[in-house]
Amino acid sequence: MKNKFYKYIENLQNTITSTLEKVDGLASFKEDIWVREEGGGGKTRVIENGAIFEKGGVNISSVHGELPEVLRKQFGVEEGNFFACGLSLVLHPINPFVPTVHANWRYFEMYNASGEIVTQWFGGGQDLTPYYLFDEDAVHFHQTCKTACDRHHPDFYPKFKKNCDDYFWNAHRNEARGIGGLFFDYLKETEDFSLENRYDFVTEIGNSFLNSYVPIVEKRKGISYTAAQKDWQEIRRGRYVEFNLVHDKGTLFGLKTNGRIESILMSLPPKVQWKYDVYPEENSDEAKLISVLKNPKSWV
Amino acid sequence: MKNKFYKYIENLQNTITSTLEKVDGLASFKEDIWVREEGGGGKTRVIENGAIFEKGGVNISSVHGELPEVLRKQFGVEEGNFFACGLSLVLHPINPFVPTVHANWRYFEMYNASGEIVTQWFGGGQDLTPYYLFDEDAVHFHQTCKTACDRHHPDFYPKFKKNCDDYFWNAHRNEARGIGGLFFDYLKETEDFSLENRYDFVTEIGNSFLNSYVPIVEKRKGISYTAAQKDWQEIRRGRYVEFNLVHDKGTLFGLKTNGRIESILMSLPPKVQWKYDVYPEENSDEAKLISVLKNPKSWV
Repeated sequence: MKNKFYKYIENLQNTITSTLEKVDGLASFKEDIWVREEGGGGKTRVIENGAIFEKGGVNISSVHGELPEVLRKQFGVEEGNFFACGLSLVLHPINPFVPTVHANWRYFEMYNASGEIVTQWFGGGQDLTPYYLFDEDAVHFHQTCKTACDRHHPDFYPKFKKNCDDYFWNAHRNEARGIGGLFFDYLKETEDFSLENRYDFVTEIGNSFLNSYVPIVEKRKGISYTAAQKDWQEIRRGRYVEFNLVHDKGTLFGLKTNGRIESILMSLPPKVQWKYDVYPEENSDEAKLISVLKNPKSWV
Repeated sequence: MKNKFYKYIENLQNTITSTLEKVDGLASFKEDIWVREEGGGGKTRVIENGAIFEKGGVNISSVHGELPEVLRKQFGVEEGNFFACGLSLVLHPINPFVPTVHANWRYFEMYNASGEIVTQWFGGGQDLTPYYLFDEDAVHFHQTCKTACDRHHPDFYPKFKKNCDDYFWNAHRNEARGIGGLFFDYLKETEDFSLENRYDFVTEIGNSFLNSYVPIVEKRKGISYTAAQKDWQEIRRGRYVEFNLVHDKGTLFGLKTNGRIESILMSLPPKVQWKYDVYPEENSDEAKLISVLKNPKSWV
């Protein structure tokens, strides 16, 4: 399974980066191949200063070795080895009317002292962070997620949609990071689902990504915007940074276990502002966004 | 002691903000008075878009009530009340040749169920974060700190200077946030020092602040700079954000105990950049800064 899923994310990285390069039309991805001292490595692909994408990364990694201490504690085991591989992407567009998107799909195996697999699971999801909210974009993104989920189980979309709203909650701001999408973890083999079923589900989600996002980019990329709207985007990007550095378990795990810093922090936006005590005007487009972030809603 | 020290920081806030307004010459501090639901409150003073200071805050607060859970855990007590007051400041200048500065001086009391003081202490310090390093500025800042310390005990400066280097360490980047200064905590009454002695020491440090920083501002504020040098400052400000949101105990404590978010996060710089994998050219001024941040040195 690990070889099969790694092969899948390798292909998906190629598909996503080549499509995004066509969408951008100006910049191309720069690839960095890196090696992890304790085992494994990754392929980081970063795009900067494009016509559409101000900054973004589509990274894969495959790491293995002894379980880091934080994971031993989390899983309540004394020792053991692990394997993990996944694809992570974040795209920060220039135009404040084009939303930021994040996605991650991953697979994990844990071994006992004899090297046998003790447990194995899939995790991941994707979520959208608009700066100006178009209801039809939110509906399109969620509908694409739901359609892919529904092919596997009618409970998946409602469950993973709620997980996503819960996870990407910027608690200290009392608001969501964005308008959500899907978040799932510990998708193991069960009576109802074989590991093969899990693979089919996660890859279906991965395959749906470009359809969930690219049409929104195409629709909004040409809207002209003011300096004040760009400022609003950069201020909201500050909330993205706050979430990733204060709350995001994946980012903090990477920072505290000697991960490759530049690959982890490629998720941070290119230009960000923090102003003191900014509140949008009542009934403005900016206020409409905040109101939805404070009370996540059902889109489909 | 709590009334005496609060009176002191109230006066110090006035002295510092009025002096900084004169230094800036354009912008003035905007005051927000806030109340903490569980007891106490604060006076936040923020300056933005000045001639010298792009953004900054000089805040005082005085809070009391039941010990928050994180503190009960940290101090190993079941229950109890506390009182804490302090002054916190951060200044982010426009000109990349003028360093950012941070300072904080505080006093803490803890009570038992009968309301008697169980323990009480002072804490705080100040540290400098240059974007371009002038050795003579670092020496001036540290010499001012050392002179104030030496009036109280010859061990204070070396000890508190090392504490500062240890505390403001951006572990995931393997570099210091800046060139340090002083950091001290749990300055309690001992055989050698009465609480009155501790007060005299902390207020001596607080009183030395303007002398440690303002001459550096005056000396560097007129240097002209390029867009590339401003970019470098904004990229380095990203490291400041990373430290404050990932490692700084005070910030995380505030975010996780329902502190006043806008007062806590006024420490974040106004405009920040994250670029992928930036390294300065060998032997450049930027490389000289990094080399000192990687290996904190003795300045006096």
